[in-house]
Amino acid sequence: MPSSDQMKAAVQAYFDLFNAQDAQGIADLYADDATVTDPVGTPAKIGKEAILEFYTMAVKNGAVLTQQGQTRIADNVAAFAFGVFVGGAGMTDKAVDVELPAGSMTIHVIDTFVFNEDGKVTEMRAHWGPENIEKH
Amino acid sequence: MPSSDQMKAAVQAYFDLFNAQDAQGIADLYADDATVTDPVGTPAKIGKEAILEFYTMAVKNGAVLTQQGQTRIADNVAAFAFGVFVGGAGMTDKAVDVELPAGSMTIHVIDTFVFNEDGKVTEMRAHWGPENIEKH
Repeated sequence: MPSSDQMKAAVQAYFDLFNAQDAQGIADLYADDATVTDPVGTPAKIGKEAILEFYTMAVKNGAVLTQQGQTRIADNVAAFAFGVFVGGAGMTDKAVDVELPAGSMTIHVIDTFVFNEDGKVTEMRAHWGPENIEKH
Repeated sequence: MPSSDQMKAAVQAYFDLFNAQDAQGIADLYADDATVTDPVGTPAKIGKEAILEFYTMAVKNGAVLTQQGQTRIADNVAAFAFGVFVGGAGMTDKAVDVELPAGSMTIHVIDTFVFNEDGKVTEMRAHWGPENIEKH
């Protein structure tokens, strides 16, 4: 099992890479056969190619992720809350299969990352829905 | 599937009942065959009797739960962050299989609730570990 420090560092890297719009860097945090479910209830993206494609779309909008509170570490799982600030431009490029309103917004999300022995993320699940969209 | 409002109300009830030390009330939020894993990585409590026993122990310390940020609702799952303030007295009664320090502390937790059609919680998973214990 990766150490708590390794898992916390991976979460910090996720924020840094997302905010640097580095989709490849994010994809490299994942294991080859990882799954990404964002939001929970929509079909999972399976495998690194699908995950890279997802994040390539996701970072295009220039959304900014800001962590809310501590990264929780239990066993080989990290859970963390954050806000996604979206400026509102280019939303036709949105990565998620969810209707989003026009204009700028902050989406309030809680993600869970499950890690494998090598410290790679094997499963990401993003918890958010229409009521977690705060319009500005 | 229960409505978002039903799931949010169940989360609010969880906080209110915990802070009122009403273990039976909390147990009634769960389905008969529900599982509670607190923290993730320890053996699950399975079924309402085991869950009631767990919460009977958990509320004895007079811990106070304070939500941090919005309840995230995705599909039939609620995820929410909170702090558990523990005054430090009576920790021999602690419900979790985890070493806790002496003195007062706030434990930073993220829980997920999975709901069934009847709006009852079928699976609770609590994400926290030693590094999420903030000593005062």
